Amino acid sequence: MKLLEDKILKDGLILEGDILKVDNFLNHQMDTVLLDEMGKEFSRLFDGKNINKILTIESSGIGIAVVASRYFDNCPVVFAKKGKSANVGGDVYGCEERSYTRNVVYNVQVSKKYLNENDNVLIIDDFLANGEALNALIEICHQAGASIAGCGIAITKAYQKGERRIADQGIEVQSLARIIDMHDGQIIFG
Amino acid sequence: MKLLEDKILKDGLILEGDILKVDNFLNHQMDTVLLDEMGKEFSRLFDGKNINKILTIESSGIGIAVVASRYFDNCPVVFAKKGKSANVGGDVYGCEERSYTRNVVYNVQVSKKYLNENDNVLIIDDFLANGEALNALIEICHQAGASIAGCGIAITKAYQKGERRIADQGIEVQSLARIIDMHDGQIIFG
Repeated sequence: MKLLEDKILKDGLILEGDILKVDNFLNHQMDTVLLDEMGKEFSRLFDGKNINKILTIESSGIGIAVVASRYFDNCPVVFAKKGKSANVGGDVYGCEERSYTRNVVYNVQVSKKYLNENDNVLIIDDFLANGEALNALIEICHQAGASIAGCGIAITKAYQKGERRIADQGIEVQSLARIIDMHDGQIIFG
Repeated sequence: MKLLEDKILKDGLILEGDILKVDNFLNHQMDTVLLDEMGKEFSRLFDGKNINKILTIESSGIGIAVVASRYFDNCPVVFAKKGKSANVGGDVYGCEERSYTRNVVYNVQVSKKYLNENDNVLIIDDFLANGEALNALIEICHQAGASIAGCGIAITKAYQKGERRIADQGIEVQSLARIIDMHDGQIIFG
């Protein structure tokens, strides 16, 4: 998606440790016009898939998922919670996720009330790198017996193992910006 | 806002410890049609205020804020981060927030890049009870020298101290559902 790629080239920052910082428009400050175009593009990419629910994970996936819902017949959005929360009851699907960015292990949870075998789920997230978060969401869908229509990712670092890891499970991954190389301040899409 | 009040009466659950659980439509699973109507109502309540930025806090405020942005000329949404995050740089506004629900103290942070003295901010959140989160966001706006156009809250527990605490600072608080009493499974709006 050229609009997102251009935005990354214009406003993204490459930091030490292979970190691409896009907090100017995606995961701290959010450009809602861009989010809307991203939602529209996801609906084009997953057209005809009969998606009835969008699943994402707090926090950065929420804005993308909620705006995308408009283009999927306003289907409900469920966001998985990280860590033990008093407000998600005991009756949950759960999975561990290791965050490489923060170097911690999260307990990812979704209430059993909001995901079941009748759901055909589009999983949305802002980043796909090692695939830990996405894998947790996939595992939760399996626990619920829900079908996975595919994964819609804003930015994928295709040179890390996550994309392959998901594709190897036979799950369709669509990335709006797919980075195949990133070094010396250069970002190469492909 | 009758639509939200009716939804709370239909799908909200009162749990022990004065907890109103609305995770069926607001803060775990999200009803995006309802979110859209809420955004529209906020734009009516804050009409003519020349708001150029929406500030919220992760995670439950994000969905509401992003959808509301549509009705405020698609202004940028900034969400404050909780806890020490490697991805928010050192150059931040910060404030502590005590969460009564989770019984922990969070470090609430907003990058200095995304809030400044030219901003006229609408603060949006899902709940107002003791006002700890909202107060942290207000303090961050003060640190940035930003103007506060008002606070738009989905659900306020008006019998707790938060609403008064904010209003006493001369800041306009608009709540879409204002609960004046909650006991024995009954919710009274007013």
